[in-house]
Amino acid sequence: MKVAVLMGSKSDLSIMEECAAILRQFGVTYEMRILSAHRTPEEVIRFSTQASDEGFSVLIAGAGMSAHLAGVIAAHTLLPVIGVPIDSSSLGGLDALLSMVQMPPGVPVATVGIGKAGARNAALLAVEMLALADETLLARLRQYRNDMKKAVLEEDDGIKNL
Amino acid sequence: MKVAVLMGSKSDLSIMEECAAILRQFGVTYEMRILSAHRTPEEVIRFSTQASDEGFSVLIAGAGMSAHLAGVIAAHTLLPVIGVPIDSSSLGGLDALLSMVQMPPGVPVATVGIGKAGARNAALLAVEMLALADETLLARLRQYRNDMKKAVLEEDDGIKNL
Amino acid sequence: MKVAVLMGSKSDLSIMEECAAILRQFGVTYEMRILSAHRTPEEVIRFSTQASDEGFSVLIAGAGMSAHLAGVIAAHTLLPVIGVPIDSSSLGGLDALLSMVQMPPGVPVATVGIGKAGARNAALLAVEMLALADETLLARLRQYRNDMKKAVLEEDDGIKNL
Amino acid sequence: MKVAVLMGSKSDLSIMEECAAILRQFGVTYEMRILSAHRTPEEVIRFSTQASDEGFSVLIAGAGMSAHLAGVIAAHTLLPVIGVPIDSSSLGGLDALLSMVQMPPGVPVATVGIGKAGARNAALLAVEMLALADETLLARLRQYRNDMKKAVLEEDDGIKNL
Amino acid sequence: MKVAVLMGSKSDLSIMEECAAILRQFGVTYEMRILSAHRTPEEVIRFSTQASDEGFSVLIAGAGMSAHLAGVIAAHTLLPVIGVPIDSSSLGGLDALLSMVQMPPGVPVATVGIGKAGARNAALLAVEMLALADETLLARLRQYRNDMKKAVLEEDDGIKNL
Amino acid sequence: MKVAVLMGSKSDLSIMEECAAILRQFGVTYEMRILSAHRTPEEVIRFSTQASDEGFSVLIAGAGMSAHLAGVIAAHTLLPVIGVPIDSSSLGGLDALLSMVQMPPGVPVATVGIGKAGARNAALLAVEMLALADETLLARLRQYRNDMKKAVLEEDDGIKNL
Amino acid sequence: MKVAVLMGSKSDLSIMEECAAILRQFGVTYEMRILSAHRTPEEVIRFSTQASDEGFSVLIAGAGMSAHLAGVIAAHTLLPVIGVPIDSSSLGGLDALLSMVQMPPGVPVATVGIGKAGARNAALLAVEMLALADETLLARLRQYRNDMKKAVLEEDDGIKNL
Amino acid sequence: MKVAVLMGSKSDLSIMEECAAILRQFGVTYEMRILSAHRTPEEVIRFSTQASDEGFSVLIAGAGMSAHLAGVIAAHTLLPVIGVPIDSSSLGGLDALLSMVQMPPGVPVATVGIGKAGARNAALLAVEMLALADETLLARLRQYRNDMKKAVLEEDDGIKNL
Repeated sequence: MKVAVLMGSKSDLSIMEECAAILRQFGVTYEMRILSAHRTPEEVIRFSTQASDEGFSVLIAGAGMSAHLAGVIAAHTLLPVIGVPIDSSSLGGLDALLSMVQMPPGVPVATVGIGKAGARNAALLAVEMLALADETLLARLRQYRNDMKKAVLEEDDGIKNL
Repeated sequence: MKVAVLMGSKSDLSIMEECAAILRQFGVTYEMRILSAHRTPEEVIRFSTQASDEGFSVLIAGAGMSAHLAGVIAAHTLLPVIGVPIDSSSLGGLDALLSMVQMPPGVPVATVGIGKAGARNAALLAVEMLALADETLLARLRQYRNDMKKAVLEEDDGIKNL
Repeated sequence: MKVAVLMGSKSDLSIMEECAAILRQFGVTYEMRILSAHRTPEEVIRFSTQASDEGFSVLIAGAGMSAHLAGVIAAHTLLPVIGVPIDSSSLGGLDALLSMVQMPPGVPVATVGIGKAGARNAALLAVEMLALADETLLARLRQYRNDMKKAVLEEDDGIKNL
Repeated sequence: MKVAVLMGSKSDLSIMEECAAILRQFGVTYEMRILSAHRTPEEVIRFSTQASDEGFSVLIAGAGMSAHLAGVIAAHTLLPVIGVPIDSSSLGGLDALLSMVQMPPGVPVATVGIGKAGARNAALLAVEMLALADETLLARLRQYRNDMKKAVLEEDDGIKNL
Repeated sequence: MKVAVLMGSKSDLSIMEECAAILRQFGVTYEMRILSAHRTPEEVIRFSTQASDEGFSVLIAGAGMSAHLAGVIAAHTLLPVIGVPIDSSSLGGLDALLSMVQMPPGVPVATVGIGKAGARNAALLAVEMLALADETLLARLRQYRNDMKKAVLEEDDGIKNL
Repeated sequence: MKVAVLMGSKSDLSIMEECAAILRQFGVTYEMRILSAHRTPEEVIRFSTQASDEGFSVLIAGAGMSAHLAGVIAAHTLLPVIGVPIDSSSLGGLDALLSMVQMPPGVPVATVGIGKAGARNAALLAVEMLALADETLLARLRQYRNDMKKAVLEEDDGIKNL
Repeated sequence: MKVAVLMGSKSDLSIMEECAAILRQFGVTYEMRILSAHRTPEEVIRFSTQASDEGFSVLIAGAGMSAHLAGVIAAHTLLPVIGVPIDSSSLGGLDALLSMVQMPPGVPVATVGIGKAGARNAALLAVEMLALADETLLARLRQYRNDMKKAVLEEDDGIKNL
Repeated sequence: MKVAVLMGSKSDLSIMEECAAILRQFGVTYEMRILSAHRTPEEVIRFSTQASDEGFSVLIAGAGMSAHLAGVIAAHTLLPVIGVPIDSSSLGGLDALLSMVQMPPGVPVATVGIGKAGARNAALLAVEMLALADETLLARLRQYRNDMKKAVLEEDDGIKNL
C-alpha cells in the first residue's frame, strides 16, 4: 500500500511537503514526484496508467492556476485521485479549486481545501481510504484524532485560565 | 461493503438520486438517508459514529447553502466522507462548495463538483475506493470507463458525419 | 447574564480578543473557550446543550474556512448564536462568511462582518440583546455610541483644521 | 414585546412575508412597514429613533442591492437589528449580503442568509432573543425544533422505505 | 463652486487625500470632512441637507466595507454624489464597490474605481461636472489631459529607446 | 442642454429605454445612439470628440460584457460620462461592472448599478448634473423625490393595513 | 489550411456550431470533433499530436466546468490553441474560464469569452491567424468588419429615427 | 515578422518584460510601446491602424483594471491581438481578465493568464502563430518544449532522490 504525492512544479513543494509529513507520521509509504500535465504530459500519462501496477493505491496531486494535473491523472487510472488546489496566482487559489473540483461526470477528483490545510487533509483522506483495509492504520487515525482533540482541549484549558 | 447516500433535506433528492443510480449500476449496496446537521444533529452523530460498525465503508453527503453535513459527519467517523455541494440558493452553489471543501486541517471531506455532475462523481469516487479491495468492482469501473469512451466516440462519429 | 466567546482554534484568538475586550468594557461577564466543530465535536455539543443551564445568554463563535462552529452550536441550543467569519485562508474570509451566513431555514446564525471589525460588532450585538432586559447596559450602549460619535467629531474637527 | 418587519420596497414583500409567517406562528406581535433608506430616509430615522419607545424589541430589515436599510436603522437605535439580504439584482444577492454584513465596527447588523431562508431565520433569531426573557416563547422554540426534527425524521423514514 | 470630500473614517484619509490633491491642482475649493453614516448619522444628514445652501456643488464620499456613506448622503441632497469604494476589509474592496454602485432606482451614486485610482478619478469627475459651467476649469481639464498624454508619450519614448 | 443616451448594441435598447423614459419625464432633450466601441470605433470617437460642440452636456453609455464603450468615450471628451453596466453574459453583469468602474486614474467613468435600475439612475444623475445650473430641473428633481417618497408612503400605508 | 473545432461533449454543440458557422462564412475548411479530455484522453492526445501533420493550422476547443480540453490539447501540439469556456454548470462559466485561461507558463491557451459570443470570436481569431498568410481571408475579414459596421450604423439610424 | 509588446502604463513594464524576454529568446523581432487606451487614444488608434503596414504580425497588449487596451487595439486592426490581464488593483486582476476576455462577438482578443505567467504565454502564443509559416521558429518551439520538459524531469529526479 503506497501513496503517490504528485505536484505540477517544484514551487509547489512547500505545500505538498505538508502532505508527505502526515504520511510519514502514519508510516505510509509514499513517493513524491514532479509531473506537469502541460510540460511533461507523457510522464503524467505513463505514471497514471502504471500507478496501480506499481503498487500505488491512492494518488494525491497538487497544482495551481489551471490545475489540470489531478484531472488528467484521473483520466488515466481507476485509482482514487485526490486534488490539492494551490494558491499560486493572484486569484487566491479559486482558479485551481474550480479547475479541480468541477470535473465532468465520469471521472471524479476528490478535492480538498486550498493550500497547506488541504495538503494535510489530502494525506488524511488517503489514510482513511487505506484504513478501510488496514486495522493498524485505522488505529493510528483514531490516535491522531485523539491527539488533535487533546491539543484543542489543552488550548481550551489554556484560554480558560487566561 | 456498503455506501451511505445522505442528504440534508428531501429537496436534495433529485440530485442525490443521480448518485444512487450509479451505485445501483455498479451493484454496490447503499442506504439513502435524510439527515440534517442542523435539524437532526443527534441522528447525524449517531449515524456517523456507528456507520463503520454497521458495515458502511464510504459515506456520501449532499447539502446546499451552509453545507455543514459532510463536515459534521466527518468529525464523527474515520471512514472516508465524500461531499456533494448542492446549488440550492441564489449563489449557484458556491456557498455549499466553499462550506464543504475548505475543511480545516485534520478532518477531510473529499469534495466533488456542484450538483448532478458531482453526485455522479461521488458515486464513482466511492466505487474507486471500494475497488481498491474488490476486483469485480474494478472490472466494472474499467467497463464503465470503456462504455463512456464508446459513447463519446459514437458522438464523435456522429458529428464527423454531420 | 453571561456571554460565551468561542473559537475554533487558538490561532483565532487575536481576532476574538477584540470581542472580549468590548465585553470587558461593558462589564459583561464572559467565558472564552476553544471548541472545534471538527476536532472536539463532543465538547461543542456538550457546551452548547448546557450553555443555557450554565447561565449563558448569548453565544459568540468565531471560525475560519469551512466555518461550521456557529452552525453546529446553533443546532444544539435555543440561545441566540452570533457568528464571526475569520479570514484564515487564501479566499479573504469569503469561505467562512458563506459557511456561516447561509444557514438553512430553522437554525439561524446572526452573522457579523469578517475579522476584527466583525468580532467587535459581535460583542456589541450581544450587548444589545442583553440590554433588552438591562437598563444599565442600555445606558452603557448609549454612552458607547456617544463616545464613538465624539471620536468621529474630533477626527472631523482635526481634518477641518488641516 | 413587539417585532418590526421592515422592507425597502413592496417588491420585497413575498420574501419578508416568510418572516411574518413565522412570527405569527410563534404568537409574536409584529408590525410590517415599508421604509426606504434612500426614498423615505426621514421615516426610517423617525421609526428607528422611536422604535424602542413604541415597544419594539427587535427590528428586522430586508433589502436588496445596496442594502443600506438595516445599517441605517441600526445607526439610529440601540435595539438589535437583523438584516435579510434579498436577491433583487443580477448578482444573486451577493451585493445585498456584503452591503449588510460588512458593517464597520460600532454598529452591528445581525445578518442572516439571502432570501426566503434568511427571512425565516430572521424571525427565529428574533424569537430566540425574545425568548431570553420569555419562558413561553422558549417552550415554543423547543417545540418548533422538535417539529422540524420530526419532519426530517419522517422524510428520512420515507426515503429509507423507498 | 465648492466640492466636499467626505470620508467615513480618518483611516480613509490617505486614500481621499489623493482626491483633495487633484482638486487643489485644479484650483477647486473643497472642504474635507469625516462623517460616518453609522457613527455620526445626524451630522451626515445635516451636512447633506444643507450642502447645497452652503455652496457645495458636488459631494465626494469615500468609504469601505458596507460603504453606506455615499448612498445616505445622496438620499438627503439633490446634488450629484460621487462614491469612492475603499479597500479596507479582506475582500479587496468588492464589498464597498457593490454597496455603493448597486443603488436602487431613484437615488444615484456616481461610483468610481476602488482606492487611490478611484479617489483621483472622483476629483476629475467633479471637475468635469463643474467645468460644464466654467470655461477656466474646462481649459485646465484640457491641459491636464494633455499633460497626461505627454507623460505617457515620454514613457513611450523612454521604452522605445530601451 | 442635451444628454446623449448611447448603447453598444440594439439588444441593450430595452435597458437604456428606461434611461430615456426618465429624461423625457424631466423634459430633458436627449439623443439616442447605437455606437460600438469595437464595431464602429470611428463613430464613437467622432461622436465623443464633437459631443461638446454639438451641445451635449452629459453622455450616458450602456454596454455589457467587456464594456469598453463608456471608457472609450470618456477618453475623447471632457464632458462627464456615465456608464451603465448591462447584464448580457452569463456572469450577471459583473464583467461589465468591473470593465466600466475600474478606470485607471485620469479618465473617470461615473458608474451606476447593473441593468434597468442603473439605467434609471444614470438619467437621474445626469439630471442632477444639469440641475446645478438649472433651477427648473432642480425643482423637478425635488418633485420627483417627493413623488417617490409618496409612493413608498402609500405602499407603507397599504402594508400597515394588511 | 484547416481548422479543428473540438468540444468536450455533444451538449456543447449548440455553442460550438456558432464557431463553425463563422468558419463556413469565411470559406475556411474545418473539422468538428467531440473529444473528451477525461473520457477519451487517448483520442485527444492522438488528435493533438497528429493535428499539424494532418494539415490543421489552428485548433479551437470548447469545454465547460473543469475545462481541461484546450490545455491538454495545447500540451501535445505546437499549433495555436483557442479555448472557448462554456457555461454548463451553476457557476456561469467562471469555472471554465479560469480553468482555461490561467495556464501555467510554457503552454498557452488563447482564451475567448464565455459561450456563443466566445465561440464566434474563436472562429474570427482563427481566421485572423490564417489571414497572416492569406490575402483572400484578410480581404474577407475586412469585409466582415465592414458588414458589422454597416449593421451597427443601420441600427443607429433606426434608433435615431425612433 | 515582428511582434508588438504594448502596455498601458510604465508600471506594467516588469510584467511585460517577461513577454519580451521570451521573444528575444526565440529571436523574434519586437517593439515595446507604452500606449494608453484612455490617455493616448489617438496613438493607440494610429499604431493599431498602421501596425500591419509597418510589418507587425501579432500585437500583444498588457493592461490592468478596466483593461481596454487590447480591445481598443483589436477594433482597429485585423491582426491577431493577444491580451495580458495585469493585477494592478485590489481585485487580483479579475477586473482586467473580465475586461479583456469578455469581448462582444466580432472583435476577438486572445486572452492569456493574469500577470507574469500570462505575459510569458502571450509571447509563446505569438511565436506559435508566427511558427505557422516559419519552420525555424517551429523548431525553436519544439526545442523550448523539450527544454521545459527536461527542467521538469530534472526537478522530478531531484525530488525522487530527496
